[in-house]
Amino acid sequence: MTYCVALLLKEGLVMLSDTRTNAGVDHIATFSKMHVVEVPGERVLCLLAAGNLAVTQSVVHLVTKGPSGKGASGKAAAKAKTLYTVPTMFQAAELVGTAVGEVFREHGETMRAQNVNFEVSVLLGGQIKGREPSLFEIYAAGNFIEATEDTPFLQIGEHKYGKPILDRAARYDIGIADAVKLVLVSMDSTLRSNVTVGLPIDLFLYRRDALKTDLRRRITEDDRYFRQLREHWSAALRDAYRALPRPDWMG
Amino acid sequence: MTYCVALLLKEGLVMLSDTRTNAGVDHIATFSKMHVVEVPGERVLCLLAAGNLAVTQSVVHLVTKGPSGKGASGKAAAKAKTLYTVPTMFQAAELVGTAVGEVFREHGETMRAQNVNFEVSVLLGGQIKGREPSLFEIYAAGNFIEATEDTPFLQIGEHKYGKPILDRAARYDIGIADAVKLVLVSMDSTLRSNVTVGLPIDLFLYRRDALKTDLRRRITEDDRYFRQLREHWSAALRDAYRALPRPDWMG
Repeated sequence: MTYCVALLLKEGLVMLSDTRTNAGVDHIATFSKMHVVEVPGERVLCLLAAGNLAVTQSVVHLVTKGPSGKGASGKAAAKAKTLYTVPTMFQAAELVGTAVGEVFREHGETMRAQNVNFEVSVLLGGQIKGREPSLFEIYAAGNFIEATEDTPFLQIGEHKYGKPILDRAARYDIGIADAVKLVLVSMDSTLRSNVTVGLPIDLFLYRRDALKTDLRRRITEDDRYFRQLREHWSAALRDAYRALPRPDWMG
Repeated sequence: MTYCVALLLKEGLVMLSDTRTNAGVDHIATFSKMHVVEVPGERVLCLLAAGNLAVTQSVVHLVTKGPSGKGASGKAAAKAKTLYTVPTMFQAAELVGTAVGEVFREHGETMRAQNVNFEVSVLLGGQIKGREPSLFEIYAAGNFIEATEDTPFLQIGEHKYGKPILDRAARYDIGIADAVKLVLVSMDSTLRSNVTVGLPIDLFLYRRDALKTDLRRRITEDDRYFRQLREHWSAALRDAYRALPRPDWMG
C-alpha cells in the first residue's frame, strides 16, 4: 500500500509520500514513490505514484525518458515529449495520463488474465516558468483532476486515515511550515493505522516562482523532529478529547 | 454506508451507530442499526448491524424472533433459541453467525446472480447474569472475534476515518464518560469525511453488572451537546496542529 498527499498553497507546494511497497505481507521493500524533474530557473515538477510498482515505474520511465528511452539530456531528449519539455503543467498531466494508457495497452490484458489489478494513480505538482504552480491527480484511466483553492489537497493510496485532519485544516492560504506539519500529521495517522504504509517518508517543498526545489528531505525513524511531532500530536489528541466537556445528558 | 463502533470497558460497554442507509446517492433513508434485547435483571444485549439492509433485517429478525417468527414472548418464544434465551454471550455470537449463514443460504446465490454483494457485519455487546460483559464482531461468513483488554474497540462499516483517535486513546480502563466522548469524536470524523454516514446517531451505554440499559439516546442535529463537541473538537485539532513546533530542518 501507499500513502501520498499534496497541498497546493498560495505560497507554493508541499508533497509527501511513504516508501513502502508490498507484494503480500511477507514481501516488503522500500522504493521511493517521489520523482522530481527539475531544470533550475525553468521548471520543477514533482510526481508521486501509487499502485502496482511495475506499472508506476513504467509510467515514470515513459514521462521522464520518453518512448525511445533516450534519457533526459542530449539531442533525442530535446525532441522527445517528456516532463522536461512539455510547455504547461496541464500538458504534463496529459502526458502522464497518456503514459498510463500506454502501459495499460501493453500489460493490462495479461495482468487481468493473471488476476492482477491494473492499479495506478499519480499526483503531479509543480511550476513551469511563466505559468502558475499547479497540482493534478491522474487516474488509472488516464484522466485527471486539478486541485483548486476550494479543495487544495489531493491524496492517493491509503487516504482515509489521514483525511479528517486535512478536511478540517487544509486551506490554500496557510503558511508552508503549517502545511508541512499538516501533511506530516496526516501521514502519522496513516502510519499508525496501516502497517503497509511505512517509514521512511519523502518530503518535497516548493515555493511559488522559485523555479527550483526548496527542500527535499527523507524522513527516517531517526528524524528527531518527526519523532517529536508524533509524540506531541498523540499527546495533543488525547488531551483534546479528555478536555471535551462531559455530555450534559449523561447525568 | 454505515459506521458503528463499540468499546468494551472495565466499567461496561459503549456502543454507537449512525442511521443512514443508501441504495445509490439518490435513495437515502434513516433506519436504526441498533437493536437492544433486554430482560432487566437477567440480560442486556445490544446489536449493531452494517451491510445490505435486507440481509441485516433478516438476521435481526431471526435472532430476536427465532426461526418460527413467534415473537419474543409467550410459550413458543421460551423454547426458541434467540438472544432472549441463549445462556452465554459466546452462544449469542454463535447464534448471530448461524443466522447470517441461514440468510446467505436463502438469498446469497440470487443476490450474486443480480450482482448484489452479500454484505453484513455485526457488533454484539452485552452481559448475561453470572457472566462477564463481552463484545463480539460477527463477519459475513458467520465466524466472529471477541474484543479483549488489549484491543477493546471494534468497528464495522466505514471505519477508517474514525480509527486514528481510537488507536491512540481507546483503552479498556478509561471511564465511561471519556469513552462516550471518544466514540462521538470518532463518529464526527466519519460524518465529516463520508456523506453516506449520517445523523442522527444512536448511543447505547451499559454499566457492568447493572443488567439493564444505562442510557439509550438518539443524537440528532439539534443535540446541543453533540454540536458543541463537534465545534470544540475541530477547534482543538486545528489548534493542536498549529501548536506543533516548526520543523528545525526547515531553516
